[in-house]
Amino acid sequence: MRVLGVDPGLTRCGLGVVDAQAARRITLVDVSVARSRPDDDVPARLAAIADAVEEVLDEHRPEAVALERVFAQHNVSTVMGTAQISGVVMLAAQRRGLPVALYTPSEVKAAVTGSGTAGKQQVGAMVARLLGLAEMPKPADAADALAIAIAHAWRGGAAPTSSRASTEAQRRWVEAERAARRRG
Amino acid sequence: MRVLGVDPGLTRCGLGVVDAQAARRITLVDVSVARSRPDDDVPARLAAIADAVEEVLDEHRPEAVALERVFAQHNVSTVMGTAQISGVVMLAAQRRGLPVALYTPSEVKAAVTGSGTAGKQQVGAMVARLLGLAEMPKPADAADALAIAIAHAWRGGAAPTSSRASTEAQRRWVEAERAARRRG
Repeated sequence: MRVLGVDPGLTRCGLGVVDAQAARRITLVDVSVARSRPDDDVPARLAAIADAVEEVLDEHRPEAVALERVFAQHNVSTVMGTAQISGVVMLAAQRRGLPVALYTPSEVKAAVTGSGTAGKQQVGAMVARLLGLAEMPKPADAADALAIAIAHAWRGGAAPTSSRASTEAQRRWVEAERAARRRG
Repeated sequence: MRVLGVDPGLTRCGLGVVDAQAARRITLVDVSVARSRPDDDVPARLAAIADAVEEVLDEHRPEAVALERVFAQHNVSTVMGTAQISGVVMLAAQRRGLPVALYTPSEVKAAVTGSGTAGKQQVGAMVARLLGLAEMPKPADAADALAIAIAHAWRGGAAPTSSRASTEAQRRWVEAERAARRRG
């Protein structure tokens, strides 16, 4: 199952594509950060990001799109741009017939690190480990987009089965997920 | 000058097209309210509204798009959907090379009624009068969309010149605008 994860933003929008195989194996397909110039007006900025998103959709043909859910309570100065980008990304997915899933930041952190309150550093480190990367993807928007894609691939793709967990990270994830369920 | 005014919303999105001639004369070209079903998921709802907006753009070929500016301080339960629709509308305009203008609700009210605190009823009544309609456009989203289009047509199109104001409503508008400037 191929998933595009999107960390929506008007200035920087993280775009991460991963493939999920059986037994929680995840491989990196593509990762990038679409940018727009803060000096441009909003419609031009939306188009710059939309063009980049559509390029990734057309080139890598994911089967699903996962997005960070935006809350109105977040940083007021950036939330409107983030919501606008989310709308544009959801529309692009819908028009390609792709299902869209939304995850809260804590759902993503819990899926990838086992803790819904993990810091950016920890999320980046786990994303690198799960994808077998030598270094943490940078900037944080790139790592976050991959984390969102991984969270969805694991939830929507192969169901978690501890008996098939084949790496240390995967085993720990299954345990953390169980613990999170007990706490939740 | 032909303007599409948009009162953005995920459940109901007002779309009003007007032509502005010299001396503040405004004529109605088209008005409609695009709707989406609250039971559908957000991407499908965004696409339903986006399809309607693009149909109006393609059929009536406005030279500019004016939108109500969305604030994060507004009703939290609807503001995210409204922001998402705004993003989708701005992108559609940008991709057609159309300039986009944003107005606050009080700017629109002041432009149409002379008072930034006018009620919906008063805005609707003035929109009907300015367009020479026998009745107020309904629902309110339709009247609001037309008010936004009129506000932009007057600001961006023919400059207000009281000597050329030819109807009672137009004369009053010019006076109200002057008064608003003095107060502002």
